[in-house]
Amino acid sequence: MDSIILSDWLQQRFDPAAAEPAYRQLFRLVQQAILSGRLAAGTKLPSSRALGTDLGIARNTLIQVYEQLLAEGYVQTQSGSGTYVADTSPDRVEEGQAGTPRRAVRDRHRLSVRGKRTIELSGVSKQQWGAFMPGVPDVTEFPLKAWNRLQSRIWRNPQPELMTYAPGGGYRPLRRALADHLRVARSANCQPEQIVITTGIHQSVDLALRMLCDVGDQVWIEEPCYWGLRGMLLSSGLKLTPIPVDAEGMNPEPRHLAKPPRMIICTPSHQYPLGMVMSLARRRMLLEYARLHNCWIIEDDYDSEFRFGIRPLASLQGLDNNGQVIYLSSFSKTLFPGMRVGYMAVPAPLADLFSLGLAELYREGQLMQQAVLAEFINEGYLTSHIRRMRGLYAERRSLLIDAVHRRYGESLPVMGDEAGLHLVLGLPHLRDDWAVCRTAMERGIIARPLSAYYSLAKGAQAGLLLGYGSVPGEKIGPSFDVLADVIDEISGAVKTRGRKVA
Amino acid sequence: MDSIILSDWLQQRFDPAAAEPAYRQLFRLVQQAILSGRLAAGTKLPSSRALGTDLGIARNTLIQVYEQLLAEGYVQTQSGSGTYVADTSPDRVEEGQAGTPRRAVRDRHRLSVRGKRTIELSGVSKQQWGAFMPGVPDVTEFPLKAWNRLQSRIWRNPQPELMTYAPGGGYRPLRRALADHLRVARSANCQPEQIVITTGIHQSVDLALRMLCDVGDQVWIEEPCYWGLRGMLLSSGLKLTPIPVDAEGMNPEPRHLAKPPRMIICTPSHQYPLGMVMSLARRRMLLEYARLHNCWIIEDDYDSEFRFGIRPLASLQGLDNNGQVIYLSSFSKTLFPGMRVGYMAVPAPLADLFSLGLAELYREGQLMQQAVLAEFINEGYLTSHIRRMRGLYAERRSLLIDAVHRRYGESLPVMGDEAGLHLVLGLPHLRDDWAVCRTAMERGIIARPLSAYYSLAKGAQAGLLLGYGSVPGEKIGPSFDVLADVIDEISGAVKTRGRKVA
Repeated sequence: MDSIILSDWLQQRFDPAAAEPAYRQLFRLVQQAILSGRLAAGTKLPSSRALGTDLGIARNTLIQVYEQLLAEGYVQTQSGSGTYVADTSPDRVEEGQAGTPRRAVRDRHRLSVRGKRTIELSGVSKQQWGAFMPGVPDVTEFPLKAWNRLQSRIWRNPQPELMTYAPGGGYRPLRRALADHLRVARSANCQPEQIVITTGIHQSVDLALRMLCDVGDQVWIEEPCYWGLRGMLLSSGLKLTPIPVDAEGMNPEPRHLAKPPRMIICTPSHQYPLGMVMSLARRRMLLEYARLHNCWIIEDDYDSEFRFGIRPLASLQGLDNNGQVIYLSSFSKTLFPGMRVGYMAVPAPLADLFSLGLAELYREGQLMQQAVLAEFINEGYLTSHIRRMRGLYAERRSLLIDAVHRRYGESLPVMGDEAGLHLVLGLPHLRDDWAVCRTAMERGIIARPLSAYYSLAKGAQAGLLLGYGSVPGEKIGPSFDVLADVIDEISGAVKTRGRKVA
Repeated sequence: MDSIILSDWLQQRFDPAAAEPAYRQLFRLVQQAILSGRLAAGTKLPSSRALGTDLGIARNTLIQVYEQLLAEGYVQTQSGSGTYVADTSPDRVEEGQAGTPRRAVRDRHRLSVRGKRTIELSGVSKQQWGAFMPGVPDVTEFPLKAWNRLQSRIWRNPQPELMTYAPGGGYRPLRRALADHLRVARSANCQPEQIVITTGIHQSVDLALRMLCDVGDQVWIEEPCYWGLRGMLLSSGLKLTPIPVDAEGMNPEPRHLAKPPRMIICTPSHQYPLGMVMSLARRRMLLEYARLHNCWIIEDDYDSEFRFGIRPLASLQGLDNNGQVIYLSSFSKTLFPGMRVGYMAVPAPLADLFSLGLAELYREGQLMQQAVLAEFINEGYLTSHIRRMRGLYAERRSLLIDAVHRRYGESLPVMGDEAGLHLVLGLPHLRDDWAVCRTAMERGIIARPLSAYYSLAKGAQAGLLLGYGSVPGEKIGPSFDVLADVIDEISGAVKTRGRKVA
């Protein structure tokens, strides 16, 4: 089916008199054409101008439809040459993801549409430990001895109430400890009742989406953003709108502001993955906009404890006077990911509803573990561990930057504020950062392609996310040299190919 | 707005020529009228016959619409007097649920529709320990010493891979141990790769719904069924159809069979909450129906290990030759609920997709805990604990039945096969089993109203779910006497009121 037929097909089905807005109707029709296979992968779509003329519809409407198709991965663009139907069959998961097993492609006709999308958008790596896995702290530095001592004490003779179902919200002393921690460390505005303990950022986001958004609601995400958001959002029936970030963070344009979303998800303290800090002006603008348009804001504060040099920045939640910010954090970066403990601070009027919703939807709550964690925090281990790790991560970050400079001088940009567990190495001269990652993986080095964090192909930058958190100092230089060889080989090949073509 | 206006309102909006089926259109319109407040709580709806005549629509279509409205709680029926708009404002959560905090009713305008429904349908009790809390095992009998010994061993010097993110499926040796357990104990057909470790039945169901069902898909649930299913299903955008159970289990009628669902959720080994076992004929029928109509079946095997007298029944999964059954179980009943470990056995072609989906959507996986559990099973503690508890629960069950018979002889029916952690005491002479539970709670006795487990008010039986699993033998008789006094008081009050009215 070529582009002329798409236009015919839409003309036969599009109903200008229908209650459903033109934009949604067209999106749905093109989506159907793609999912049903009528529009095959690789088919070039007509330009928005041509299609608009054929259908008698404003070009802006079609631009919007194309953007949504791009955002959800149904089509892709090639700069200067147009828009093409993406390959949405589950085979795509293989591409560049060594971790995805081959068997995953069978039985594709039997997953739901959202199930298929979840698999297609998958960003999970099979390997989660080694240079330069981003987002993973050095778990070998975790104070196991202290933890084990507290764990043995709690498990020796527990109250039965700690071993049965947890009716919601979490272990009270842990909620109190976390409210104190947030007030002091994050200038948050928060009472113990507002804390809801979850299994991590994913569950916190999912709970907020279910309690506050309905199927079809629009959600703003940052462009680029954390890979895990897209699958969750689409699987929860939401429409996502990627909002570009600039040096001050999430930067909605007038066309975005004209259509207020139900929810805004952002990383104000340390943009993920690019690393900038949202300016106060931008923070105030977002809060004011949310107040005026009755939007919710999710503040994902995933690694703000690790800010080198200056004191950690205040949370967005602390600026919120209207109870519109849902603050999320977890112990995945400060302690270890396999702990699976996250927490949210929700506006006071929602607190009990969220606790009840959590119990109803997930039946969660390992109170034994929460009791150990509460003791761990109350005895000061969390604070001292964070302080120690902050020094260690700052040092590892310097070592990695030194390695980059030794090899490339200033010719490759290093992005990211002085914070967190990873930095981004820009590869402005390359288009296929996936190729670098695939070859690096073959040589035992993990790097994640920056382009994979963008929802829209248009505007995606090439680069590498390099995590230094879990890499011992002495391995940073040598590991980077292995990676740099790969970068150089692929850059050379590109140059050679470029020359041959020219 | 009275019934005449509803009919006008539908006439103005209903479009017989629309692509959307009449049934869905009408359901959506009435739903909108209720959610927007245009149809106030307590309003009587016109009869399906009258409305059908007004709209020129087959009465059967309207019966179907009314049933769906009932199933999702938008309306309720009063036998012999008609159908009324239910009170769907969050205040309803208070009704008979001592556990729900008063503050939960504020801010109602700000939750999403699905968030509100989740809260309204909430079945979580604040109290989770004491006579006669159903579904809770005796956690004080858990072999803590053995567990703690293994836990200390694993935590002494863990591999970093056990402490970081788990890429999916779970800890391999635990998956192997569970596949062995299922083959032997449940006659399941299952390899280690088919096992996916979750945080419990809720997460397992949610994952299956997301991977296999899309928004708007129809799911069959048992009538009555586990309270936790309805909120999860509606929050995931699914339509639920309650299928009555008879002595042989889930019993779809011809009108149900005429509309195949995408998914069937059932409890073949021990119907929850009524306790019957699905007959082999019924099992074969369901499997054959699912094969013909390409439906998925979720087998929730929540407590099948505790079957007294005869050997546990084979799972439905073991009968499935077409890879259509998703088997679910957990350690909440066999070990303790606060462990939060469940597992699924999924058809082989889906196994890797489910593992990947789990990692993508939830980022779960406490591998340290899974490693302890694997050792616990491999050293034989699970099997011996189950054997010991089976004896204990059989004894407690007898004590409770003795207490019932001492007080009531055979005048009140005791339902439930000889299995599990609870039984159902029928109260056929009472309509308001909630009243019994509220008063019992004031006297320190937990009982759950059987009527709350029904999706449709029509056909709901009155009764009490009484859990004996967590009640020490010597407390069973005295606790039941306290409860029986409440039953008698309320029965007496009903009789007196009945006499006054007559």
